[in-house]
Amino acid sequence: MTHPSAELAEFAAQLVYEDIPDDVLRRTEDLMLDCLASTLAGSSARAVQTIAQFADTMGPTSGPSENMVTRRSTSPLFAAMVNAAAAHMVEQDDVHNGSVFHPAAVVFPPAIATAQALGRSGKELLVACVAGYEVGIRVGEFLGRSHYKVFHTTGTAGALAAAVAVGRLLNLNKQQMLHALGSAGTQAAGLWEFLRDAADSKQLHTAKAAANGMTAAYLAHDGFTGAQHILEGPQGMGAGMSQDADPAKLTDRLGTRWTVLETSFKFHASCRHTHPAADALLDVVQSNDLSIDDIASVVAHVHQGAIDVLGPVTNPTSVHQSKFSMGSVLGLIAQQRRAGLPEFDAGLDDPAVAAFRSRVSMELDDEVDTAYPRQWIGKVTVQTRDGRTLTARVDEPKGDPGNTLSRNEIEDKAFRLATYRNAASKEESQALIEKVWSLAELQMVGRFLG
Amino acid sequence: MTHPSAELAEFAAQLVYEDIPDDVLRRTEDLMLDCLASTLAGSSARAVQTIAQFADTMGPTSGPSENMVTRRSTSPLFAAMVNAAAAHMVEQDDVHNGSVFHPAAVVFPPAIATAQALGRSGKELLVACVAGYEVGIRVGEFLGRSHYKVFHTTGTAGALAAAVAVGRLLNLNKQQMLHALGSAGTQAAGLWEFLRDAADSKQLHTAKAAANGMTAAYLAHDGFTGAQHILEGPQGMGAGMSQDADPAKLTDRLGTRWTVLETSFKFHASCRHTHPAADALLDVVQSNDLSIDDIASVVAHVHQGAIDVLGPVTNPTSVHQSKFSMGSVLGLIAQQRRAGLPEFDAGLDDPAVAAFRSRVSMELDDEVDTAYPRQWIGKVTVQTRDGRTLTARVDEPKGDPGNTLSRNEIEDKAFRLATYRNAASKEESQALIEKVWSLAELQMVGRFLG
Repeated sequence: MTHPSAELAEFAAQLVYEDIPDDVLRRTEDLMLDCLASTLAGSSARAVQTIAQFADTMGPTSGPSENMVTRRSTSPLFAAMVNAAAAHMVEQDDVHNGSVFHPAAVVFPPAIATAQALGRSGKELLVACVAGYEVGIRVGEFLGRSHYKVFHTTGTAGALAAAVAVGRLLNLNKQQMLHALGSAGTQAAGLWEFLRDAADSKQLHTAKAAANGMTAAYLAHDGFTGAQHILEGPQGMGAGMSQDADPAKLTDRLGTRWTVLETSFKFHASCRHTHPAADALLDVVQSNDLSIDDIASVVAHVHQGAIDVLGPVTNPTSVHQSKFSMGSVLGLIAQQRRAGLPEFDAGLDDPAVAAFRSRVSMELDDEVDTAYPRQWIGKVTVQTRDGRTLTARVDEPKGDPGNTLSRNEIEDKAFRLATYRNAASKEESQALIEKVWSLAELQMVGRFLG
Repeated sequence: MTHPSAELAEFAAQLVYEDIPDDVLRRTEDLMLDCLASTLAGSSARAVQTIAQFADTMGPTSGPSENMVTRRSTSPLFAAMVNAAAAHMVEQDDVHNGSVFHPAAVVFPPAIATAQALGRSGKELLVACVAGYEVGIRVGEFLGRSHYKVFHTTGTAGALAAAVAVGRLLNLNKQQMLHALGSAGTQAAGLWEFLRDAADSKQLHTAKAAANGMTAAYLAHDGFTGAQHILEGPQGMGAGMSQDADPAKLTDRLGTRWTVLETSFKFHASCRHTHPAADALLDVVQSNDLSIDDIASVVAHVHQGAIDVLGPVTNPTSVHQSKFSMGSVLGLIAQQRRAGLPEFDAGLDDPAVAAFRSRVSMELDDEVDTAYPRQWIGKVTVQTRDGRTLTARVDEPKGDPGNTLSRNEIEDKAFRLATYRNAASKEESQALIEKVWSLAELQMVGRFLG
């Protein structure tokens, strides 16, 4: 067992609390809170409610795991599915730059649902989530840029991340964990095609990555076998779903490089590809005290991935789709100097923001594209109506590891997300925050809402 | 709505019983019986039992749909999942040559589970299954040979076939059906990598194709949207999972060409890629009255797809894997003149069959490869120990439309499958056969086992 898939499986199966540095554990708590609050913020959305209704039709009406959308209990599978659908809904959950992968939505929901079902401790849950991040992010890096052009990495790599997190809680041995990777990888799916239609698939991708990964892990626990080389094999994920898959990425400094620490918080409530330009434009607007009407045009100098994902979105017809419109995001920054959930809700039908979209363009920038995805540089060129040309540059968008959020900022973001549209009360939100901060001391994870 | 995905959706949504020729309906009944019997034959296998156990853990313990593996009732999702896992287990379910796709296992289980849940009639069930076949097979043809080199088409195209069958029973309109295709396509998965390890993934592929397609249809019914061009779009299935996708295949003679009639029964209990050579060898063995010991070597002249799928299987370690070993299959033909379920069970550990494997080789044949997948030609060259060179050729393997099974042969095969390992009693098997033959008269589909 020395090939990359096996090394990953062994790492995941053997990771223990004591091997994980303290800052990694604390950052995992930060990311979990960010995810739970995102789940609440997304819980009332139509696409999420439809998945919750499906879970009610097909799943059991009681069980050991907490469905944070319906506030009822069910089996781990449906708790994971529904909560994962909600976690990614408002585009406020985390992102890992190098893999262009949103780990939180596909790691925490299945891990928490399993921990609740099995009566695991807070420390066991944290270990499982770290394992899910470390494997999922490396799988995303392995699949590479060609994969991301067509596939939603959070859906594909996400199934393996979920399998590992659940598998660790099931105490899979290294061979079982390898089977779980095999069964997860052969279920991995998620295509970007939905984006140009503003369709609901993104929620289905996270829901199914979480559920499919959990399926793989539970099956492996009970003796079901999977491919031994699902990632690097000649008929595996790399062969079928990438043109630049690099197996060396799978095992890059396992146990010494902690990708949890490389994971970014999202400050703006939009697709991460808009954030570098949004931060750069915010700098221009604030430094020159511009209003939206002062701006004649904005050129966002971007990487190819931004053009691939955002390019098809020219005339957003839903709040969710507007988060994938560079023009809409920069319009909110120009108008409100903020692109949070309330700004997106108000901005969809705002004529000034709609008019601003046609004044925004994206241009491929060699420097930005070369640095990506290791570094997400933001560069904008602004023409003002009074004839000035203004530029700004941001090397690390707000929320990146070098420009991260403090625990106070994380709490503030979580509180605003959890109480968005009254998903949770102020008291519940405060209790949720405190529960996550004390997670490592809990003998049983238990429920996160009252 | 005139693009290929939309035309397919419209066809599927609008197909009615009166539009379907009588021979298509009767053949659909034949294929359903073949599938139900295959499901029973596979029901006791370990991989199937493990999936059934997972369904018990995660799903409801009662419901409107029949789990033929556990003989209990559950929700449609888990009935579809478990029955679809069983249907493909013993490699006796049908195959469509041109698409290299096994429609039965991914169409009948979700359609039956849904019909039972919604109280649909036998005619409504038949229409839904025809729609599932016609769409799924065209999706398989669209994805093409390059797709099949890495992806298990029954897993990928199967999700769309299942979505259509379930969607028709849910009376989706054409726009909802298109959303269902979008949600099914973005969940489509299944890689061949498991095959070289004799892993259990094939059962997971059919289980998940059935369940994922059903998920897509139910979600579409409740307003969940999907990509409008999931098949032919620039970030759709063709773009991500094929190098030779041909959108014209998607709408080829919809409503006049009935691919149900092109679907083959499997006579041997092995991978279909072994059947042409098996029939040709059977001809040589019978015509010359040879025993296994008379044969010094066999060259099977095959298409590239056979080499891709069977090539990795050199030393089978399970009965299931031996069905993907050309040497094992030809060994049973040489020894037993039959390669059915009992022969495979006995043959795995038979030293004469094991020794025979090293006397069998595959060679790519230009004529065979050019005709494939439209026609599956079998050609073998046999060297006997007494120095003779014998050849045979079969233009249509047994079970193909031009060399098909009669209703008597279908009943005989179904009876043997249903009673295999006492899955069903003789009385139950006979009642099952009679129920399928009278399906079109039933006002409510109901249960298939007592």
